[in-house]
Amino acid sequence: MSSFLFTIAGECGAARSGVFTTPHGEVATPAFMPVGTLATVKALDPSELTAMGATMILANAYHLHLRPGDDLVKEMGGLHRFMRWDGPILTDSGGFQVFSLPTLRKITEEGVEFQSHIDGSRRFFTPETVIRIQQNLGADVMMQFDHVIPGQSEENLARDASERSIRWAARCLGEFERTAAESSGADGQPQALFPIVQGGIHAHLRSEAARTLTDMHDWHGFGIGGLSVGEEKPAMYGILDMIGDHLPRGRPRYLMGVGFPEDIIEAITRGVDLFDCVAPTRMGRNGAAFTRDGRLNIKRAEYRNDPRPLDEACDCAACARFSRAYIRHLFVSDEILGHRLLSLHNVHFLLSLARTARHEISSGNLDAWSLEWLARYHSTSSAQ
Amino acid sequence: MSSFLFTIAGECGAARSGVFTTPHGEVATPAFMPVGTLATVKALDPSELTAMGATMILANAYHLHLRPGDDLVKEMGGLHRFMRWDGPILTDSGGFQVFSLPTLRKITEEGVEFQSHIDGSRRFFTPETVIRIQQNLGADVMMQFDHVIPGQSEENLARDASERSIRWAARCLGEFERTAAESSGADGQPQALFPIVQGGIHAHLRSEAARTLTDMHDWHGFGIGGLSVGEEKPAMYGILDMIGDHLPRGRPRYLMGVGFPEDIIEAITRGVDLFDCVAPTRMGRNGAAFTRDGRLNIKRAEYRNDPRPLDEACDCAACARFSRAYIRHLFVSDEILGHRLLSLHNVHFLLSLARTARHEISSGNLDAWSLEWLARYHSTSSAQ
Repeated sequence: MSSFLFTIAGECGAARSGVFTTPHGEVATPAFMPVGTLATVKALDPSELTAMGATMILANAYHLHLRPGDDLVKEMGGLHRFMRWDGPILTDSGGFQVFSLPTLRKITEEGVEFQSHIDGSRRFFTPETVIRIQQNLGADVMMQFDHVIPGQSEENLARDASERSIRWAARCLGEFERTAAESSGADGQPQALFPIVQGGIHAHLRSEAARTLTDMHDWHGFGIGGLSVGEEKPAMYGILDMIGDHLPRGRPRYLMGVGFPEDIIEAITRGVDLFDCVAPTRMGRNGAAFTRDGRLNIKRAEYRNDPRPLDEACDCAACARFSRAYIRHLFVSDEILGHRLLSLHNVHFLLSLARTARHEISSGNLDAWSLEWLARYHSTSSAQ
Repeated sequence: MSSFLFTIAGECGAARSGVFTTPHGEVATPAFMPVGTLATVKALDPSELTAMGATMILANAYHLHLRPGDDLVKEMGGLHRFMRWDGPILTDSGGFQVFSLPTLRKITEEGVEFQSHIDGSRRFFTPETVIRIQQNLGADVMMQFDHVIPGQSEENLARDASERSIRWAARCLGEFERTAAESSGADGQPQALFPIVQGGIHAHLRSEAARTLTDMHDWHGFGIGGLSVGEEKPAMYGILDMIGDHLPRGRPRYLMGVGFPEDIIEAITRGVDLFDCVAPTRMGRNGAAFTRDGRLNIKRAEYRNDPRPLDEACDCAACARFSRAYIRHLFVSDEILGHRLLSLHNVHFLLSLARTARHEISSGNLDAWSLEWLARYHSTSSAQ
């Protein structure tokens, strides 16, 4: 029996609630996965993530390969042990990062040559090397190496990148299966490999990619990549509207790099199960907080003596104790605790949002809830 | 009956263990007080301090007067409520900060004129204004405004500053008593005022100051200022050797701005009860950790793959979970969690050191323990 399993618990329109089982534990879906690019969710302690109910987190193969090195992580017992996260972990393959480098890359069918953003050293990523890197890291779920393009790319470029991504998925799978005897993670646990559906904003490329990948192998789950990378929101929602029909119902769907609260809700109603995004911690370090009434910039003078919590309905460890006035003071004074509290609040906000959506799916009330939630979020952002 | 009380539980030579009772709780002494200059112990959450057994913390009147303003802190319910620290707090008067400003100050008998280091605005601190600022902040213990001089200052300067500090102590007391009806802290709790013994490295100035202050009023405790500010260590220890004889036995003695582990031990054996220092958090942010074997610089290459905790005998939340290799990675990558973990470890180290000393005083074994501890700390700093 496989160490990976996805069971659907409830459905509501296209939306699903379920449980994704991994060697390091279960993930109730829909779920937001906090991002720990460099084996740390920025500003937070693993114990805080656990207390907030985070189940699965992300780390990044590109960044960890460069620093501290996937070989070192392996030597230290793998990512779970290194960063002391006992729950499930997913590693992004580095495709997004490599293709986001401003210059210094050469893309061939074999792979991508680039220079490290840290020391300028020349590196070469192929589907095969990226599998080996992720085996060294030992996350529960590895992602294929994919060819990522800007969100508004026209069809020829999108087709080329999508077809290359499909060929690279096959090579990743080949390497994964070739090394099966040794392919369990650094801590001895089995790993799963997810392919990534590309195709830009072109529905027929997306359906073609989804079908080809589905036919290629019985994957444990699917990534949906190349969205929220510059295209218009309706274009993203349009792809999400159609893609589910072309993916097996019984496998989790992971919308990569998304997102903001409104995107998460829109995607859940369209059948997405897993999310990740750096926004909650990045925005948190910049002084922006998610609230039910839109985003709040804590540095604004109006919060100088505001005794209220960031969001009066929030039960996170920041809102339970601290006033906007105090957190504003921390930001104005550039105190680390300010970064901690807003990062914690924002991550909690998205974890809590996914939990609530899960509940609303089970009770069959997702559509009414999501409409009301989105209306409030979009309408009252100046009502703070 | 007073809200402030100091009871001595045990003695061992000049050293004492005791309990300092304040309106916000008891402090078992000897005790290290973590420093929260701007109403936050840098990089740490109050809940972490509580979990580590911190009882009393420090904040700074100079810094909080400038930002966010003591008036705002009062409006928000006082320092305890603002920063969510329910235990005892002591505020330093700002004397040390004002006299440390590199330029832009004019010292008269009336007070000190200076420019804010934040916006350059002109400010004037007097013994009276500093009392009002600290009443707005509402800490349990306020410190008098004192005249601080460099550690090696010659006798005339030291005498001048010490005598001015004594006159300012009288003015602080006058203002404190004049405003008695309204002098309870911002949260309605009574406050205590400690004078500060100055006199540089000149024993007869120190004894004169201690006696004059003792005769002036029945204070709830005494600060010992102007040490660890550039003088040689033997000079500091020499003053500590003699000063206790000139202070009332039944009042806590607070050695301001000290210190490092070795200084804390040396001072405890000489009868000091309370300590504060920014070193554990400042060093923590710079990558230095206290260990029983001396200081460890976590950025060094030798820790790259070191699976051991910072200090194998430490039971802090960092050492209980994380390897040197991981913490080094966090520092090399400039991750906030690195700053958090080393700050937490270092503060825990000093809290724990004071607790152990207290235990050794009770069991009559302080001298043997302190000699052994210091020998190991000084001898093996390269044995990491």
